[in-house]
Amino acid sequence: MSKQIISTPVIRRLPRYYRFLADLEQEGVIRISSGELAQRMGLSASQIRQDFNCFGGFGQQGYGYHVEELREIIGEILGVHKKTGVILIGAGNLGKAIASHVDFTKRGCELIGIFDSNPLIQGTSTANLPIMPMESLDNFCSQYHPEAAVLCIPKDAAQKIADRLIGLGIKGFWNFSHYDLRLNNPDVIVENVHLGDSLLTLSYCMHRNEEQA
Amino acid sequence: MSKQIISTPVIRRLPRYYRFLADLEQEGVIRISSGELAQRMGLSASQIRQDFNCFGGFGQQGYGYHVEELREIIGEILGVHKKTGVILIGAGNLGKAIASHVDFTKRGCELIGIFDSNPLIQGTSTANLPIMPMESLDNFCSQYHPEAAVLCIPKDAAQKIADRLIGLGIKGFWNFSHYDLRLNNPDVIVENVHLGDSLLTLSYCMHRNEEQA
Repeated sequence: MSKQIISTPVIRRLPRYYRFLADLEQEGVIRISSGELAQRMGLSASQIRQDFNCFGGFGQQGYGYHVEELREIIGEILGVHKKTGVILIGAGNLGKAIASHVDFTKRGCELIGIFDSNPLIQGTSTANLPIMPMESLDNFCSQYHPEAAVLCIPKDAAQKIADRLIGLGIKGFWNFSHYDLRLNNPDVIVENVHLGDSLLTLSYCMHRNEEQA
Repeated sequence: MSKQIISTPVIRRLPRYYRFLADLEQEGVIRISSGELAQRMGLSASQIRQDFNCFGGFGQQGYGYHVEELREIIGEILGVHKKTGVILIGAGNLGKAIASHVDFTKRGCELIGIFDSNPLIQGTSTANLPIMPMESLDNFCSQYHPEAAVLCIPKDAAQKIADRLIGLGIKGFWNFSHYDLRLNNPDVIVENVHLGDSLLTLSYCMHRNEEQA
């Protein structure tokens, strides 16, 4: 499928479309109009049609969207059937939770290695994978060629480890460190999850609501 | 400070400004021009000036921004000195990690209670707080009046529990459940962290890069 450059807001909505369509499919819904889908998702019908047009459009005039087909097409676009090898760096509370809580395989990924610099947890397991020392990283990468890394390490360590990982062939980061990785590495793909920023945003919005009340 | 309605992208950038300014302050930087700050943050100087103008503008022509002062003003806007009472619902892997990994007090919040429906973990502690049964929720809320809730519960349980929490006075949600809470509750503040969607976005961007290579 040939693709044009898709804007970030559209990309951000794709996983959500995928999620809603999977729910609809599970509920046994065979087809849905853009209007119904819009209402369910809190979007406008024209927004949905516009988004889907970025990928060539999926609906048929007067019929709406075939739920299963549309979910499959969007899944294909998102790459859910890929098996991108992923390593996790940092197996503290958050790293362990991500390893065990997130279903990587449903998102086109496979978690294949976990690394931590703390000798006290090296050798223990999480999500059925042994936690390996950072010294094993080079060998592991040259043997298994992971393409993405989850970073659950302190901010201070993030840049150095990111540089090392890029040297080892990592092309994408799922970054939980409070460090803005992309600034010094414009060529890699970075998906940030800045939990602190997210909580602060909630604080701000609640705070503002209060003042306006 | 009187406030106009600020657009979502500006709000989303505020915590990041706050974070960068805290770093600068820690590095001993006294003042910074919008140009230098822009370069450091990967934004444009005019973007920064425009953002700050939403709050009345903070800089002085020819002087730039006073780092400590600006950080304090933005912190004040964000409400970092507030102590919004927060409860956590769902103390599985992810809930526990959030309770112990995230510094709530730095973000204007105080984690005051943790609840889970699993009797096996009730009574154990995480982040120095006992995990309480869901049955204690009503009493707890009428006694301590928490205003926000972190939801780390399965999607299927999210709507029902959210409704119950709204009835108990919760006005804001930090939502880690893969459920789009806001759709049925337009009046509450919802900050979503959809980890699965985030990982899928990374997958898509890597996948697309590959095809274009």
